[in-house]
Amino acid sequence: MAESWSFLDTFETDFRPLVVIELAKGTKGETVEWLTKRIADKKANGGEYSMIFRAQLMVKPLVMENGDENIYVVGASHLRLLLGAETVGLVKECNDNSMRTFTYSSRKTFKDFADDNDNFLTMAECQYIIKHELENLRAKDEKMIPGYPQAKLYPGKSIVRRLLTSGILVQIFPLHDREELKKLRHSWYGRVKVGYQPLDEIRCYFGETIALYFGFLEYFTFALIPMAVIGIPYYVFAWEDYDKYVMFATFNLLWSTVILEVWKRICAIMTYRWGTLLMKRQFEEPRPGFHGVLGINPITGREEPVYSSIKRQIRIYLVSLPFVCLCLYFSLYVMMIYFDLEKWALDYHEENESTFSSLMLFVPSIIYAVVIEIMNRIYRYAAEFLTSWENHRLESSYQNHLILKVLVFNFLNCFASLFYIAFVLFDMKLLRQSLATLLITSQILNQFAESLLPYWLQKRHKKRMKKHTCSLKTDTDLSLADQVNLEKEMGTYFGTFDDYLELFLQFGYVSLFSCVYPLAAVFAVLNNITEIYSDALKMCRVYKRPFAEPTANIGVWQLAFETMSVISVVTNCILIGMSPQVNALFPDSKTDLILTVALVEHLVLAMKFIMAFVIPDKPKDIQIKLAKLEFESLEALKQQVRANDMYNSEI
Amino acid sequence: MAESWSFLDTFETDFRPLVVIELAKGTKGETVEWLTKRIADKKANGGEYSMIFRAQLMVKPLVMENGDENIYVVGASHLRLLLGAETVGLVKECNDNSMRTFTYSSRKTFKDFADDNDNFLTMAECQYIIKHELENLRAKDEKMIPGYPQAKLYPGKSIVRRLLTSGILVQIFPLHDREELKKLRHSWYGRVKVGYQPLDEIRCYFGETIALYFGFLEYFTFALIPMAVIGIPYYVFAWEDYDKYVMFATFNLLWSTVILEVWKRICAIMTYRWGTLLMKRQFEEPRPGFHGVLGINPITGREEPVYSSIKRQIRIYLVSLPFVCLCLYFSLYVMMIYFDLEKWALDYHEENESTFSSLMLFVPSIIYAVVIEIMNRIYRYAAEFLTSWENHRLESSYQNHLILKVLVFNFLNCFASLFYIAFVLFDMKLLRQSLATLLITSQILNQFAESLLPYWLQKRHKKRMKKHTCSLKTDTDLSLADQVNLEKEMGTYFGTFDDYLELFLQFGYVSLFSCVYPLAAVFAVLNNITEIYSDALKMCRVYKRPFAEPTANIGVWQLAFETMSVISVVTNCILIGMSPQVNALFPDSKTDLILTVALVEHLVLAMKFIMAFVIPDKPKDIQIKLAKLEFESLEALKQQVRANDMYNSEI
Repeated sequence: MAESWSFLDTFETDFRPLVVIELAKGTKGETVEWLTKRIADKKANGGEYSMIFRAQLMVKPLVMENGDENIYVVGASHLRLLLGAETVGLVKECNDNSMRTFTYSSRKTFKDFADDNDNFLTMAECQYIIKHELENLRAKDEKMIPGYPQAKLYPGKSIVRRLLTSGILVQIFPLHDREELKKLRHSWYGRVKVGYQPLDEIRCYFGETIALYFGFLEYFTFALIPMAVIGIPYYVFAWEDYDKYVMFATFNLLWSTVILEVWKRICAIMTYRWGTLLMKRQFEEPRPGFHGVLGINPITGREEPVYSSIKRQIRIYLVSLPFVCLCLYFSLYVMMIYFDLEKWALDYHEENESTFSSLMLFVPSIIYAVVIEIMNRIYRYAAEFLTSWENHRLESSYQNHLILKVLVFNFLNCFASLFYIAFVLFDMKLLRQSLATLLITSQILNQFAESLLPYWLQKRHKKRMKKHTCSLKTDTDLSLADQVNLEKEMGTYFGTFDDYLELFLQFGYVSLFSCVYPLAAVFAVLNNITEIYSDALKMCRVYKRPFAEPTANIGVWQLAFETMSVISVVTNCILIGMSPQVNALFPDSKTDLILTVALVEHLVLAMKFIMAFVIPDKPKDIQIKLAKLEFESLEALKQQVRANDMYNSEI
Repeated sequence: MAESWSFLDTFETDFRPLVVIELAKGTKGETVEWLTKRIADKKANGGEYSMIFRAQLMVKPLVMENGDENIYVVGASHLRLLLGAETVGLVKECNDNSMRTFTYSSRKTFKDFADDNDNFLTMAECQYIIKHELENLRAKDEKMIPGYPQAKLYPGKSIVRRLLTSGILVQIFPLHDREELKKLRHSWYGRVKVGYQPLDEIRCYFGETIALYFGFLEYFTFALIPMAVIGIPYYVFAWEDYDKYVMFATFNLLWSTVILEVWKRICAIMTYRWGTLLMKRQFEEPRPGFHGVLGINPITGREEPVYSSIKRQIRIYLVSLPFVCLCLYFSLYVMMIYFDLEKWALDYHEENESTFSSLMLFVPSIIYAVVIEIMNRIYRYAAEFLTSWENHRLESSYQNHLILKVLVFNFLNCFASLFYIAFVLFDMKLLRQSLATLLITSQILNQFAESLLPYWLQKRHKKRMKKHTCSLKTDTDLSLADQVNLEKEMGTYFGTFDDYLELFLQFGYVSLFSCVYPLAAVFAVLNNITEIYSDALKMCRVYKRPFAEPTANIGVWQLAFETMSVISVVTNCILIGMSPQVNALFPDSKTDLILTVALVEHLVLAMKFIMAFVIPDKPKDIQIKLAKLEFESLEALKQQVRANDMYNSEI
C-alpha cells in the first residue's frame, strides 16, 4: 500500500489535502489497492470512450490515532488541477477584465495567473475539480469491484457511484480550511455590523450555489424593507380604513413583480462576475441511485442501465399521485380539527372571560402551526422516498418531481386554513390572528430546528470528542487526523432546498394576504436578518463543508416565486373586494362591485405580464459583454473556416 | 471589362447563373470595374478583421437586347459554394441519418455528396450562400465608393448595403429555375387533388421561411377542421341552446391551446429535417437603412455608425407612441360612425320592410369591413415609415417594433366593434351578423388584393413585354436575357408578415367569439384552402423569386397566437356568462353567476398554462437526437482537452 501520512509530510511538500474519502471499516485490501491505483495512476490513457480510467490524483491513507485505516486523503498537483479546470469548463477573469473559459494553453492571459501561484484556483474550485474527476473515474473492462462480486460494473460505469451505492464507500467530503474559515466567519458574522454579506468570499469558500442562496436571502430581505416600513404605521396608528389597505395592497402587487424581475438582473451580474453565467452545462450522467437492466443509451450509444419510461409513469400516476392526494386530504382533515379547536377556545373565552382565556385563544393556532411544521417534515421524507422509488434517471428530473410534490403539499398545508378563513368564513379578524400566529410560530420553529438544535448537538459532540481524545489543543492547530476525525462526524448539508422552501412559504405569508396584515413584512424582515446569521452559523460550524456547485441562477425557485406572486394578485383583489369600505362604494349593486374587482384583477395581471416581458432579464452591460464573447467565438470560427478555404484553394 | 455572355457560353460551361445584380442605369465605369473585381477576385486574404474583402464569386455582364449594360449575373464554382456552405453554417443530413453542420473537410460523410455531384446543395441554398457572401463583402481601406464621393465607406462596412442605400445598386435577386418551378407548380397546385402540400420541395425551392409559412397554413387549416365540423350542425339545425354553445366554447378553448402547443412540436420535426433547428444564429449586422455618426461598436470593437439609444427612445415615446394612440382613437371614431350607419339602416328597414331593406341591413357592415381593410393598409405604411425613422440598428429590433405597432392597431381596428357590440350593447344577434360580414368581406378582399390583382397585373405586363420584343418563344425556352428582363420587372415579395397577420386576425375572428358564431371556423377553413392555392400562385407566378432565409420557428407569431388564445378564454367565458340559459341556472343571484364565471375562467386559464408547461416543445425523438449531438460535441471537446493533457504531461 501507499506511504503513510507521516512519511508524506517530509517528502512531498506540495501535497495539499483537499478531499477525504471514508471507506467502510474492514474493506478488503485488494479493493483498496485497486481503487487507490485507479485514482493515483499517472499514465494517461485516452481510450475508446475518451473516458477517464485513471484520475492521476494523489491519494494517501490517513492513519488515525485509534488505528483505523479506512480514511484516505486526496489531493492533486498544481498542473493536474489546472488541466482539470479546463475539463470542467471553469470560467475565470482575463487580464482585459473579460470573463473567459479557462484553457491551459491560454493560461497566461488570465488575471492573477502565475505558474508558481497556487491561489489562482480557489480551494472550493480545486475540490470541485477533484470531485468531478473522481465521479468521472470509469470502469474499463472490470465486471465487478475487486473483492465484491455482487457490486457489478460495466464499461463506462462511474466507479465512485457504484462504490457509494454498494456501501463500500461511506462518504466523500471536502476538507475545511481552518484559516480561511476563521477569516470568513469574522467578516460574515463575527462582528456586529450593518452592511452586506461578503458574498464573493462566501462564493470562494462554499461555491456559487450557496453564495447565490445567501445573495437571494439578502436581496429578498432588502426588498421586503419598503413593505415593512409602509406596514408599520398601519399597526402603530391602528389604521383600519380600507382605502389605505387598498393602497398598500396595490403597492405590494407591483412591488413583488418588480423585485422578482430585478432579482434576475442582479443574479446575472453576480454570476457573470463569478463566471458561472458563461459556464457550459455539463452532460448529465445518471444519478447514483438509478437502477435498471443493462441496455443501450440512445444518446451516448454506451451500455448502461435502462429503465422503462412506462414503468416510471405507472409508479408516478398510480402510486405517487394518489399518495400525494391522500396527504392533501389528510392535511385538510387536520385543518378541520383545528377549526373545531378554535371554536372550542372561543366558546371557552366567552364563558369565562379572563387573561388566561384570552391567551387560550392563541393556543389552537400555535398547536396547528406546530402540527403543520411536523406534517411538512414527515411529508418531506415520504416525498423523497417516493421520488427516489420512481427511479428517475437524471438528478434534474428527480429534483423537479421532488420539488413539485413538496411545493404542492406545503402550499396547501400552510395556506389552506387561511384561504378557508378568508373566503369561506369571511372572518378578517380571525384571518389576521391566524396569519400572525402561523407566521411567527413557524419562524421560531424553523430557526430552532434548522440551526440552533444542530449547533448544540454539534457542540456536545465536539466536547465529547475532545474528552475522548484527551487533547487540549485549540481549534486552529488540530492535526490533520484530528480535523478529519472531527469533520467526518459532522452533519451533511443537503443543499439549499429547505432554505429556499422556507423563504417561499414566507413570501406566501407576506404577499397572499398582505392587505389584511401589513405587519407580516416586518416579521419577515426581522426573521431574515436572524436567518442570515443562523444560516451562516450553520454553514460554518454545524455541517461538513459541502462541495461547491457552479450555478447560474436559482432555477425552479424563480418560477415558484413568480407563480406565488400571480396567486397573490388574485387573493388580494378578492380581499379588497370583500372589504366593507369598497362595498360601500357600490351601495346599489353587488354585481358592479364584482365586475369592477374582476376587471382590476385582469388589468393588474396583464400589467404584471407586460412588466415581466419588458424588463430585460440581464442588464445592458452584461448583455454587451455576452454579445462580445459570442461575436469573438463566431469570428474565431470564421477565421478557422477561412484558413481551411485558403488551404483548399491552394490545392 | 469582363467577357460578354455569349463568349462565356462557349468557354466556361460550369458557370450557372444564380443571382442577378441590377445597377442603376449610367453607373460609372470605374465603379463597375471596382465592384466586379471585388466580387470576382480570386486571391484569398484573411486580413486583420477576418472579413471578406474579396468574394471569389463569378460575375458576368449580361448584354440585353436593348443594349443596356447594367445587369450582371453572379455564380460560383462548386468548390466555392461548398466552402460558403461551411461559412454560413448549413446543416445537412449525414450518411448515418443524423443532421450535422457541414464542413468541407468532413464532406464525404454527408448523404448524397460526391465531388462531381452539383445537386448536393439546392439552388436556393446556393443563392442564399451567394447573397451571404455578397452582403459580407466589406470595405477595406476605401473611404468612399469609387466614382461616388458622397457614398462614404469605412473599414468593415458592407459594400453592397452602401451601394443599395446610395441607389447605385437597384436590386439583387435570385433567378428562377424554370424547369424546377414547373415541376413544383405541378405538384403544388397543378392538378386538383386532396393531400398535403409538397413542403420539402417548397423548402428546396423557396427556402425555410416560406415553407414554414405554408406548413403553418396547412397545419392551421387542418386544426380548424374539427371546429368547423362541430360548428356545422349548429347552423344546420339552428341550435340555439346555450348548453350546446358552452360545450362548443369549452372545446374551442382547450383545442386552441392544444393546437398551438402541438404546432411547436411539428415545427421542430420539420426544421430538424431541414437542418435549420440546429443552425447557429449568425451574428447580426446593422440593417441597411441604419445611419448614425461613426463610433466604436462596444461588441465588435469596430468603427461603425452609432446612434444614441436615448434619441431613439425619444422618437419612440414622443412621436410614434402618440401617433399610434391617435390612430387608435381615429379607428374608434370610425367605429362610432359605423354604429350610426347601422342604426340608420335598422330604422330604414323598420320603416319600409322589403327584401331590399333587409339586404340593406348588411351594407353598413360591408362598408365598415372595407374601411377597416383600407385603414389597416394605410396604417401599415405609416407604421413602416415610423419604425424605419426610429432608426433601429438591428433588423430584429426593427421587426419587433413594427410587428407590435401593427398588431395593436389591427387588433383594435378589427375587433373593437365586436367587443363593443358584445359587451356594451349586449346584442348577440348583431354580433353574429357583424362577425360574419366582417370575416367574409375581409377574406374576399384579402384574396383579391393579395394574389388575384397582382397576378392579373403581372399577366398584362408579360403580354405587353412579349408584344414589345415580338418574340414567339414559349415560356420555358426563353433566353437568359429574356428571363432576367422578365423577372426583374416582377413585384418583390416582402416576406411572410402580411400572410401571418391575415391568419392571426382570422384566428381572432374564429376564437374570440366562437361560442356565438360557430360557423366562423367553416369559413376560415374554406378561405384557407383557397388561400393555399392563391398564395402558391402568388409565389410561383407573381413575384420575383425571394432569397431563401433559414429559420427554425415562426418566431414572434407563436407568442401573438398564444396571447390571442388567452384573450379568447376571457371573452368566451363572459359571453357564456351573459347567455340567458346560463343566467337561468342562477335565478336568485346574479352575484353567484358572476363569481362562478370568474372561477371557471381562472381554472381554464390555469389549465392552459399548465398544459403549455407540461406538453414538451419538442417530440421525444428530436430531443434525443439533439442531446446526442450535444453529447458528441462535449465528447469531442473533452478528447481535445485530454490530448492537451497528454501533451502537457509528457513535457
